[in-house]
Amino acid sequence: MPSKENISEWLQTLQKSICTALEQVEEDAVFSTEPWQRPEGGGGITRVIQNGAVLEKGGVNFSAVQGPAPAFLFAEKEHSLQPSHQQNKATFYAAGVSIVLHPKNPWVPIIHMNIRYFEMSTGVYWLGGGIDLTPHYINKNDAVFFHQTLKAACDKHHKDYYQKFKKWADDYFYITHRNETRGIGGIFFDRMNHSEDMSFEKNLAFWKEIGNTFAPLYVELIQRNKEKKYTENEINWQRIRRSRYAEFNLVYDKGTKFGLETNGRIESILMSLPPLAAWHYNYKPAPNSAEAQTQALLKKEMDWINPSF
Amino acid sequence: MPSKENISEWLQTLQKSICTALEQVEEDAVFSTEPWQRPEGGGGITRVIQNGAVLEKGGVNFSAVQGPAPAFLFAEKEHSLQPSHQQNKATFYAAGVSIVLHPKNPWVPIIHMNIRYFEMSTGVYWLGGGIDLTPHYINKNDAVFFHQTLKAACDKHHKDYYQKFKKWADDYFYITHRNETRGIGGIFFDRMNHSEDMSFEKNLAFWKEIGNTFAPLYVELIQRNKEKKYTENEINWQRIRRSRYAEFNLVYDKGTKFGLETNGRIESILMSLPPLAAWHYNYKPAPNSAEAQTQALLKKEMDWINPSF
Repeated sequence: MPSKENISEWLQTLQKSICTALEQVEEDAVFSTEPWQRPEGGGGITRVIQNGAVLEKGGVNFSAVQGPAPAFLFAEKEHSLQPSHQQNKATFYAAGVSIVLHPKNPWVPIIHMNIRYFEMSTGVYWLGGGIDLTPHYINKNDAVFFHQTLKAACDKHHKDYYQKFKKWADDYFYITHRNETRGIGGIFFDRMNHSEDMSFEKNLAFWKEIGNTFAPLYVELIQRNKEKKYTENEINWQRIRRSRYAEFNLVYDKGTKFGLETNGRIESILMSLPPLAAWHYNYKPAPNSAEAQTQALLKKEMDWINPSF
Repeated sequence: MPSKENISEWLQTLQKSICTALEQVEEDAVFSTEPWQRPEGGGGITRVIQNGAVLEKGGVNFSAVQGPAPAFLFAEKEHSLQPSHQQNKATFYAAGVSIVLHPKNPWVPIIHMNIRYFEMSTGVYWLGGGIDLTPHYINKNDAVFFHQTLKAACDKHHKDYYQKFKKWADDYFYITHRNETRGIGGIFFDRMNHSEDMSFEKNLAFWKEIGNTFAPLYVELIQRNKEKKYTENEINWQRIRRSRYAEFNLVYDKGTKFGLETNGRIESILMSLPPLAAWHYNYKPAPNSAEAQTQALLKKEMDWINPSF
């Protein structure tokens, strides 16, 4: 297993550098800093921003929790093979940086990033992560830029990673009960250790690359869109997209579930929820409206590198 | 088993009479009426109101769905005893009226009512139901009136029902991750068939009583509060309480879960979600404020018949 301390330190440095980069494009607010302890072991540093000129609400959170492994972890196949007396003594360690940012301007997309390292005393350990984008209005150039940036980061490490992890994001960031994707996807990967052509160390370098890709990528998307004018109608649509975001996070998101089931700090876990969200009964965008165009693109298997729309 | 047709007809009559009663206190809006069919069998009539002077958003929904029993039903202990070839052929029938109403004025409480009948071809059948109240601001007199009305309805049928079902509501309408109740509770019961001193027919009469109690109870609470003046600050608190309501319904509510897992009509299931909800990071009401007083009362085992506060 890699050194927990090295990974934890690297994640905290990443958290700092992302907050600093975001504060440079944010005029009216700074990130608060709240360290917290988990009663069963470990803790985190929650950094939240609210009521900014650019960022209406969001968090860039670090956590590193540890302790006796909760029973639900043994529902996974590879763990259930452990004899029960070993399950009772097993401990886990999970460290990561989680980000969700809800911009004020509906032309700026919502973004999410998470990278995490997990290990158990039974000997398993892995990396996971993902970045996905939820534009309130899909802008073709921004979508291509977002996916090309992720593809370039993946391509540096493995020629198959972008396609593989793009598909995984399509499947993961999916609101089944709405039959729609959360946004335009991105990349998602989990339980990454080593493979025939990639050592754990090489995968760790890829994982760090994803973390480092976040800040310049989102700052560029902010710069492109933050001065655009918007109307009440566009704010209303933003609130509807945000309510879908809340549905995804409360019904499906595995990070939220993991946090709730391991007695994480509730305000840190739910910082991802939007500042203001609207649910209208049976809302349908007007035919051919910008809202209808975005709605029509919220599906899996879109080619965002060479979009055909 | 009782006659499905009789129960279904009675529920539809109840739905109509509740909508009519609510429209009499609502000046600016009426309930829409949308019948829908479930591909696997059955359907419903969704009746929704939006943008009223009294009711900002809400639904009074009837549904009666049937078909092959989904696998998750057999996770329940009494069903898992069935041999698997019988599980494969089993069918279910579920009929009910479900109500959630989000008033515009924060001095009027949110209300929920559900009564349901369930049967399976394996021979089991039961009644379930509940009413619970979520005041944005807890008003002692209204709380006593609400619980006394429920107690009187219960007492007509069985001396133990109010205490038993009030406790069940405390446990059911609980937001575990927030360590708070959704509101001031009410009554909740499930899997009611017959017992030593109550035949199924007697329980059916109790169940109908609960359905009939709803309209006069909520109309009275509307009349008492709908003309009260409110401020931006009170609207803001209303939106925070509504976001907790959304958390409960998306994370814990069994009716929502059942609807999503049986491929119910999604817009009918999620009509319960609030028109506009706010999530602020780590919001704490000011000490001794009206909001802090309400927050302090959101706990189990309150005596709402003789409150001590």
